[in-house]
Amino acid sequence: MNYPTGIKKSFINKETKREYKNLGMNLENDINNTNEYYINKEIAYIYKKPTPIKLVKVDYKKGRIEEAYFEKPSTTDYNGIYHGHYIDFEAKETVNKTSFPLANIHKHQINHIRNINKEKGICFLIVRFTKLNKTYLLMAKDFLLYIDNNKKSNIPISYFEEKAYLIKEKFYPRVDYLEIINKLEV
Amino acid sequence: MNYPTGIKKSFINKETKREYKNLGMNLENDINNTNEYYINKEIAYIYKKPTPIKLVKVDYKKGRIEEAYFEKPSTTDYNGIYHGHYIDFEAKETVNKTSFPLANIHKHQINHIRNINKEKGICFLIVRFTKLNKTYLLMAKDFLLYIDNNKKSNIPISYFEEKAYLIKEKFYPRVDYLEIINKLEV
Repeated sequence: MNYPTGIKKSFINKETKREYKNLGMNLENDINNTNEYYINKEIAYIYKKPTPIKLVKVDYKKGRIEEAYFEKPSTTDYNGIYHGHYIDFEAKETVNKTSFPLANIHKHQINHIRNINKEKGICFLIVRFTKLNKTYLLMAKDFLLYIDNNKKSNIPISYFEEKAYLIKEKFYPRVDYLEIINKLEV
Repeated sequence: MNYPTGIKKSFINKETKREYKNLGMNLENDINNTNEYYINKEIAYIYKKPTPIKLVKVDYKKGRIEEAYFEKPSTTDYNGIYHGHYIDFEAKETVNKTSFPLANIHKHQINHIRNINKEKGICFLIVRFTKLNKTYLLMAKDFLLYIDNNKKSNIPISYFEEKAYLIKEKFYPRVDYLEIINKLEV
Protein backbone atom coordinates (compact mmCIF):
# COMPACT_ATOMS: atom_id res chain seq x y z
CA MET A 1 0.00 0.00 0.00
CA ASN A 2 1.44 3.32 -1.03
CA TYR A 3 0.47 6.45 0.87
CA PRO A 4 0.59 9.97 -0.54
CA THR A 5 3.83 11.73 0.41
CA GLY A 6 3.96 12.82 3.99
CA ILE A 7 0.75 11.18 5.18
CA LYS A 8 1.20 9.17 8.34
CA LYS A 9 -0.24 5.68 8.26
CA SER A 10 -2.15 6.22 11.51
CA PHE A 11 -4.45 8.72 9.84
CA ILE A 12 -5.58 6.28 7.20
CA ASN A 13 -8.37 3.93 8.28
CA LYS A 14 -9.69 0.89 6.45
CA GLU A 15 -12.32 2.81 4.61
CA THR A 16 -9.76 5.26 3.33
CA LYS A 17 -7.49 2.43 2.24
CA ARG A 18 -10.25 1.06 0.07
CA GLU A 19 -11.04 4.51 -1.27
CA TYR A 20 -7.39 5.11 -2.07
CA LYS A 21 -7.17 1.84 -3.89
CA ASN A 22 -10.05 2.96 -6.08
CA LEU A 23 -8.41 6.32 -6.61
CA GLY A 24 -5.54 4.47 -8.22
CA MET A 25 -2.42 5.10 -6.15
CA ASN A 26 -0.53 2.23 -7.79
CA LEU A 27 -1.36 3.32 -11.29
CA GLU A 28 -0.40 6.82 -10.19
CA ASN A 29 3.01 5.58 -9.07
CA ASP A 30 3.50 3.75 -12.36
CA ILE A 31 2.60 6.87 -14.34
CA ASN A 32 4.88 9.06 -12.22
CA ASN A 33 7.68 6.55 -12.88
CA THR A 34 6.90 6.70 -16.61
CA ASN A 35 6.80 10.51 -16.73
CA GLU A 36 10.12 10.62 -14.88
CA TYR A 37 11.57 8.31 -17.55
CA TYR A 38 10.26 10.58 -20.32
CA ILE A 39 11.77 13.66 -18.62
CA ASN A 40 15.14 11.97 -18.03
CA LYS A 41 15.30 10.80 -21.63
CA GLU A 42 14.12 14.25 -22.83
CA ILE A 43 11.19 12.61 -24.63
CA ALA A 44 8.29 14.58 -23.12
CA TYR A 45 7.50 16.88 -20.19
CA ILE A 46 4.30 15.67 -18.59
CA TYR A 47 3.45 16.32 -14.93
CA LYS A 48 0.70 15.48 -12.47
CA LYS A 49 -1.14 18.57 -11.31
CA PRO A 50 -1.29 19.04 -7.54
CA THR A 51 -4.70 18.34 -5.98
CA PRO A 52 -6.57 21.62 -5.51
CA ILE A 53 -6.96 22.59 -1.86
CA LYS A 54 -9.29 25.08 -0.22
CA LEU A 55 -7.31 26.94 2.44
CA VAL A 56 -9.21 27.94 5.59
CA LYS A 57 -6.60 28.65 8.23
CA VAL A 58 -2.97 29.44 7.47
CA ASP A 59 -0.15 30.62 9.72
CA TYR A 60 1.87 32.54 7.15
CA LYS A 61 4.63 33.39 9.61
CA LYS A 62 5.35 29.68 10.06
CA GLY A 63 4.32 28.90 6.49
CA ARG A 64 1.94 26.31 7.94
CA ILE A 65 -1.52 25.35 6.71
CA GLU A 66 -3.66 24.55 9.78
CA GLU A 67 -7.03 23.88 8.19
CA ALA A 68 -7.76 23.07 4.57
CA TYR A 69 -9.96 20.77 2.49
CA PHE A 70 -9.45 18.76 -0.68
CA GLU A 71 -11.39 20.06 -3.67
CA LYS A 72 -12.63 18.21 -6.73
CA PRO A 73 -10.34 18.90 -9.69
CA SER A 74 -12.11 20.62 -12.61
CA THR A 75 -9.56 19.41 -15.15
CA THR A 76 -7.71 16.13 -15.67
CA ASP A 77 -4.76 15.03 -13.52
CA TYR A 78 -1.92 15.06 -16.05
CA ASN A 79 -0.84 17.42 -18.78
CA GLY A 80 2.25 18.48 -20.63
CA ILE A 81 4.09 18.60 -23.93
CA TYR A 82 5.27 15.95 -26.39
CA HIS A 83 7.01 17.17 -29.57
CA GLY A 84 5.24 20.53 -29.31
CA HIS A 85 1.83 18.87 -28.96
CA TYR A 86 -0.40 19.35 -25.96
CA ILE A 87 -0.97 16.10 -24.03
CA ASP A 88 -3.77 15.74 -21.48
CA PHE A 89 -5.07 12.68 -19.68
CA GLU A 90 -6.82 11.23 -16.67
CA ALA A 91 -5.77 7.95 -15.00
CA LYS A 92 -8.13 5.67 -13.08
CA GLU A 93 -8.02 2.25 -11.49
CA THR A 94 -11.00 0.02 -10.92
CA VAL A 95 -11.40 -3.29 -9.07
CA ASN A 96 -14.44 -4.02 -11.26
CA LYS A 97 -13.83 -6.91 -13.67
CA THR A 98 -16.57 -6.25 -16.19
CA SER A 99 -16.85 -2.49 -16.56
CA PHE A 100 -15.42 0.94 -15.73
CA PRO A 101 -17.79 2.95 -13.47
CA LEU A 102 -18.34 6.43 -14.91
CA ALA A 103 -18.83 7.85 -11.40
CA ASN A 104 -15.01 7.91 -11.38
CA ILE A 105 -14.97 10.87 -13.78
CA HIS A 106 -16.60 14.12 -12.65
CA LYS A 107 -18.87 16.21 -14.90
CA HIS A 108 -16.32 19.07 -15.00
CA GLN A 109 -13.63 16.65 -16.09
CA ILE A 110 -15.79 15.32 -18.93
CA ASN A 111 -16.38 18.90 -20.03
CA HIS A 112 -12.63 19.53 -19.93
CA ILE A 113 -11.92 16.37 -21.98
CA ARG A 114 -14.48 17.56 -24.54
CA ASN A 115 -12.81 20.99 -24.80
CA ILE A 116 -9.30 19.58 -25.16
CA ASN A 117 -10.42 17.08 -27.78
CA LYS A 118 -12.15 19.82 -29.79
CA GLU A 119 -9.03 22.02 -29.54
CA LYS A 120 -6.97 19.17 -31.08
CA GLY A 121 -5.04 18.24 -27.96
CA ILE A 122 -3.88 14.63 -27.58
CA CYS A 123 -6.36 13.63 -24.92
CA PHE A 124 -7.12 10.22 -23.43
CA LEU A 125 -7.93 8.11 -20.38
CA ILE A 126 -5.65 5.47 -18.89
CA VAL A 127 -7.83 2.89 -17.15
CA ARG A 128 -6.43 0.00 -15.18
CA PHE A 129 -8.59 -3.02 -14.36
CA THR A 130 -6.56 -4.17 -11.35
CA LYS A 131 -8.18 -7.61 -10.98
CA LEU A 132 -7.59 -8.35 -14.66
CA ASN A 133 -4.03 -6.93 -14.68
CA LYS A 134 -4.90 -4.88 -17.75
CA THR A 135 -4.21 -1.20 -18.43
CA TYR A 136 -5.94 0.45 -21.38
CA LEU A 137 -5.50 3.75 -23.17
CA LEU A 138 -8.85 5.06 -24.44
CA MET A 139 -8.69 8.11 -26.72
CA ALA A 140 -10.98 11.02 -25.76
CA LYS A 141 -12.93 10.78 -29.02
CA ASP A 142 -13.84 7.15 -28.29
CA PHE A 143 -14.65 7.93 -24.66
CA LEU A 144 -16.96 10.79 -25.74
CA LEU A 145 -18.49 8.63 -28.47
CA TYR A 146 -19.52 6.12 -25.80
CA ILE A 147 -20.90 8.52 -23.21
CA ASP A 148 -22.77 10.57 -25.83
CA ASN A 149 -24.53 7.50 -27.18
CA ASN A 150 -25.17 5.48 -24.03
CA LYS A 151 -27.09 6.44 -20.94
CA LYS A 152 -25.30 3.84 -18.83
CA SER A 153 -23.33 4.54 -15.66
CA ASN A 154 -20.35 2.49 -16.79
CA ILE A 155 -18.32 1.50 -19.85
CA PRO A 156 -18.22 -2.29 -20.36
CA ILE A 157 -14.85 -4.00 -20.70
CA SER A 158 -15.91 -5.10 -24.20
CA TYR A 159 -15.81 -1.45 -25.31
CA PHE A 160 -12.21 -1.21 -24.10
CA GLU A 161 -11.35 -4.45 -25.92
CA GLU A 162 -12.85 -3.03 -29.09
CA LYS A 163 -11.76 0.64 -29.04
CA ALA A 164 -8.94 1.10 -26.53
CA TYR A 165 -5.26 0.14 -26.72
CA LEU A 166 -3.70 -2.27 -24.24
CA ILE A 167 -0.58 -0.80 -22.63
CA LYS A 168 2.07 -3.47 -22.12
CA GLU A 169 3.54 -3.23 -18.63
CA LYS A 170 7.32 -3.04 -18.52
CA PHE A 171 9.90 -2.49 -15.83
CA TYR A 172 10.98 1.00 -16.92
CA PRO A 173 9.01 2.87 -18.00
CA ARG A 174 6.15 0.99 -16.37
CA VAL A 175 3.27 2.23 -18.53
CA ASP A 176 4.73 3.44 -21.82
CA TYR A 177 1.64 5.25 -23.07
CA LEU A 178 3.55 7.39 -25.59
CA GLU A 179 4.42 4.19 -27.47
CA ILE A 180 0.68 3.92 -28.23
CA ILE A 181 0.43 7.62 -29.16
CA ASN A 182 3.36 7.19 -31.58
CA LYS A 183 1.65 4.29 -33.33
CA LEU A 184 -1.50 6.36 -33.76
CA GLU A 185 0.65 8.94 -35.57
CA VAL A 186 -1.23 11.80 -33.95
CA MET B 1 -5.71 43.75 -1.51
CA ASN B 2 -6.91 40.39 -2.71
CA TYR B 3 -6.47 37.31 -0.57
CA PRO B 4 -6.24 33.74 -1.83
CA THR B 5 -9.62 32.02 -1.68
CA GLY B 6 -10.65 31.04 1.79
CA ILE B 7 -7.85 32.73 3.71
CA LYS B 8 -9.12 34.82 6.57
CA LYS B 9 -7.71 38.33 6.77
CA SER B 10 -6.73 37.90 10.41
CA PHE B 11 -4.07 35.37 9.48
CA ILE B 12 -2.28 37.74 7.16
CA ASN B 13 0.10 40.13 8.89
CA LYS B 14 1.85 43.13 7.40
CA GLU B 15 4.88 41.17 6.33
CA THR B 16 2.72 38.67 4.50
CA LYS B 17 0.82 41.46 2.80
CA ARG B 18 4.05 42.77 1.35
CA GLU B 19 5.14 39.29 0.36
CA TYR B 20 1.82 38.63 -1.33
CA LYS B 21 2.08 41.83 -3.27
CA ASN B 22 5.43 40.65 -4.59
CA LEU B 23 3.97 37.27 -5.41
CA GLY B 24 1.62 39.03 -7.80
CA MET B 25 -1.91 38.46 -6.58
CA ASN B 26 -3.30 41.29 -8.68
CA LEU B 27 -1.62 40.11 -11.83
CA GLU B 28 -2.84 36.64 -10.92
CA ASN B 29 -6.42 37.90 -10.73
CA ASP B 30 -6.05 39.64 -14.09
CA ILE B 31 -4.69 36.47 -15.68
CA ASN B 32 -7.44 34.34 -14.16
CA ASN B 33 -9.97 36.82 -15.57
CA THR B 34 -8.27 36.57 -18.97
CA ASN B 35 -8.16 32.76 -18.96
CA GLU B 36 -11.85 32.69 -18.01
CA TYR B 37 -12.55 34.93 -21.03
CA TYR B 38 -10.59 32.58 -23.32
CA ILE B 39 -12.49 29.56 -21.96
CA ASN B 40 -15.91 31.24 -22.29
CA LYS B 41 -15.14 32.31 -25.87
CA GLU B 42 -13.71 28.83 -26.62
CA ILE B 43 -10.40 30.43 -27.66
CA ALA B 44 -7.98 28.52 -25.40
CA TYR B 45 -7.98 26.30 -22.31
CA ILE B 46 -5.29 27.55 -19.98
CA TYR B 47 -5.38 27.01 -16.22
CA LYS B 48 -3.36 27.94 -13.17
CA LYS B 49 -1.88 24.89 -11.48
CA PRO B 50 -2.69 24.53 -7.79
CA THR B 51 0.22 25.30 -5.44
CA PRO B 52 1.89 22.04 -4.42
CA ILE B 53 1.33 21.20 -0.76
CA LYS B 54 3.17 18.76 1.49
CA LEU B 55 0.60 16.98 3.63
CA VAL B 56 1.63 16.08 7.17
CA LYS B 57 -1.58 15.46 9.11
CA VAL B 58 -4.89 14.62 7.47
CA ASP B 59 -8.20 13.51 8.96
CA TYR B 60 -9.51 11.51 6.03
CA LYS B 61 -12.82 10.74 7.73
CA LYS B 62 -13.61 14.44 7.88
CA GLY B 63 -11.70 15.11 4.64
CA ARG B 64 -9.76 17.75 6.57
CA ILE B 65 -6.08 18.68 6.24
CA GLU B 66 -4.80 19.60 9.71
CA GLU B 67 -1.14 20.23 8.99
CA ALA B 68 0.52 20.91 5.67
CA TYR B 69 3.16 23.16 4.13
CA PHE B 70 3.48 25.07 0.88
CA GLU B 71 6.10 23.66 -1.47
CA LYS B 72 8.07 25.43 -4.18
CA PRO B 73 6.61 24.65 -7.59
CA SER B 74 9.03 22.84 -9.92
CA THR B 75 7.22 23.96 -13.05
CA THR B 76 5.57 27.22 -14.11
CA ASP B 77 2.19 28.36 -12.81
CA TYR B 78 0.08 28.25 -15.98
CA ASN B 79 -0.27 25.82 -18.82
CA GLY B 80 -2.79 24.71 -21.36
CA ILE B 81 -3.74 24.48 -25.01
CA TYR B 82 -4.25 27.05 -27.77
CA HIS B 83 -5.14 25.74 -31.25
CA GLY B 84 -3.49 22.39 -30.46
CA HIS B 85 -0.27 24.08 -29.30
CA TYR B 86 1.11 23.69 -25.82
CA ILE B 87 1.19 27.01 -23.90
CA ASP B 88 3.26 27.43 -20.73
CA PHE B 89 4.07 30.55 -18.74
CA GLU B 90 5.00 32.08 -15.42
CA ALA B 91 3.57 35.40 -14.16
CA LYS B 92 5.37 37.73 -11.77
CA GLU B 93 4.87 41.19 -10.35
CA THR B 94 7.63 43.44 -9.10
CA VAL B 95 7.55 46.80 -7.30
CA ASN B 96 11.05 47.46 -8.66
CA LYS B 97 11.08 50.31 -11.22
CA THR B 98 14.37 49.60 -12.96
CA SER B 99 14.73 45.80 -13.14
CA PHE B 100 13.12 42.41 -12.61
CA PRO B 101 14.83 40.47 -9.77
CA LEU B 102 15.71 36.94 -10.93
CA ALA B 103 15.29 35.63 -7.37
CA ASN B 104 11.59 35.57 -8.32
CA ILE B 105 12.16 32.55 -10.58
CA HIS B 106 13.44 29.33 -8.98
CA LYS B 107 16.18 27.20 -10.52
CA HIS B 108 13.74 24.33 -11.20
CA GLN B 109 11.42 26.70 -13.00
CA ILE B 110 14.24 27.96 -15.23
CA ASN B 111 15.08 24.36 -16.05
CA HIS B 112 11.41 23.72 -16.88
CA ILE B 113 11.26 26.82 -19.13
CA ARG B 114 14.39 25.56 -20.92
CA ASN B 115 12.83 22.14 -21.52
CA ILE B 116 9.53 23.51 -22.79
CA ASN B 117 11.29 25.95 -25.11
CA LYS B 118 13.46 23.16 -26.53
CA GLU B 119 10.37 20.95 -27.02
CA LYS B 120 8.78 23.76 -29.12
CA GLY B 121 6.12 24.77 -26.61
CA ILE B 122 4.92 28.37 -26.64
CA CYS B 123 6.65 29.46 -23.46
CA PHE B 124 7.01 32.92 -21.92
CA LEU B 125 7.03 35.10 -18.82
CA ILE B 126 4.46 37.77 -18.02
CA VAL B 127 6.14 40.41 -15.86
CA ARG B 128 4.27 43.35 -14.37
CA PHE B 129 6.18 46.39 -13.12
CA THR B 130 3.45 47.61 -10.75
CA LYS B 131 4.93 51.06 -10.07
CA LEU B 132 5.30 51.70 -13.81
CA ASN B 133 1.87 50.29 -14.69
CA LYS B 134 3.47 48.16 -17.38
CA THR B 135 2.97 44.46 -18.11
CA TYR B 136 5.39 42.73 -20.48
CA LEU B 137 5.40 39.38 -22.26
CA LEU B 138 8.97 38.05 -22.60
CA MET B 139 9.37 34.94 -24.75
CA ALA B 140 11.32 32.05 -23.17
CA LYS B 141 14.04 32.22 -25.84
CA ASP B 142 14.76 35.87 -24.99
CA PHE B 143 14.61 35.18 -21.26
CA LEU B 144 17.11 32.30 -21.64
CA LEU B 145 19.31 34.41 -23.95
CA TYR B 146 19.62 36.97 -21.17
CA ILE B 147 20.29 34.65 -18.25
CA ASP B 148 22.75 32.52 -20.26
CA ASN B 149 24.82 35.56 -21.19
CA ASN B 150 24.65 37.67 -18.03
CA LYS B 151 25.71 36.78 -14.54
CA LYS B 152 23.46 39.43 -12.99
CA SER B 153 20.74 38.83 -10.43
CA ASN B 154 18.14 40.84 -12.34
CA ILE B 155 16.97 41.75 -15.84
CA PRO B 156 17.02 45.52 -16.45
CA ILE B 157 13.84 47.20 -17.68
CA SER B 158 15.77 48.23 -20.83
CA TYR B 159 15.93 44.54 -21.84
CA PHE B 160 12.14 44.32 -21.56
CA GLU B 161 11.78 47.52 -23.63
CA GLU B 162 14.03 46.00 -26.28
CA LYS B 163 12.96 42.35 -26.40
CA ALA B 164 9.59 41.97 -24.67
CA TYR B 165 6.08 42.90 -25.83
CA LEU B 166 3.96 45.38 -23.89
CA ILE B 167 0.52 43.93 -23.09
CA LYS B 168 -2.16 46.62 -23.33
CA GLU B 169 -4.48 46.45 -20.33
CA LYS B 170 -8.15 46.27 -21.19
CA PHE B 171 -11.34 45.78 -19.24
CA TYR B 172 -12.11 42.26 -20.45
CA PRO B 173 -9.93 40.35 -20.97
CA ARG B 174 -7.60 42.30 -18.70
CA VAL B 175 -4.25 41.02 -20.03
CA ASP B 176 -4.84 39.71 -23.55
CA TYR B 177 -1.53 37.86 -23.91
CA LEU B 178 -2.76 35.65 -26.77
CA GLU B 179 -3.10 38.79 -28.91
CA ILE B 180 0.71 39.05 -28.70
CA ILE B 181 1.17 35.34 -29.45
CA ASN B 182 -1.06 35.70 -32.54
CA LYS B 183 1.07 38.55 -33.87
CA LEU B 184 4.22 36.49 -33.43
CA GLU B 185 2.57 33.85 -35.67
CA VAL B 186 3.95 31.05 -33.54
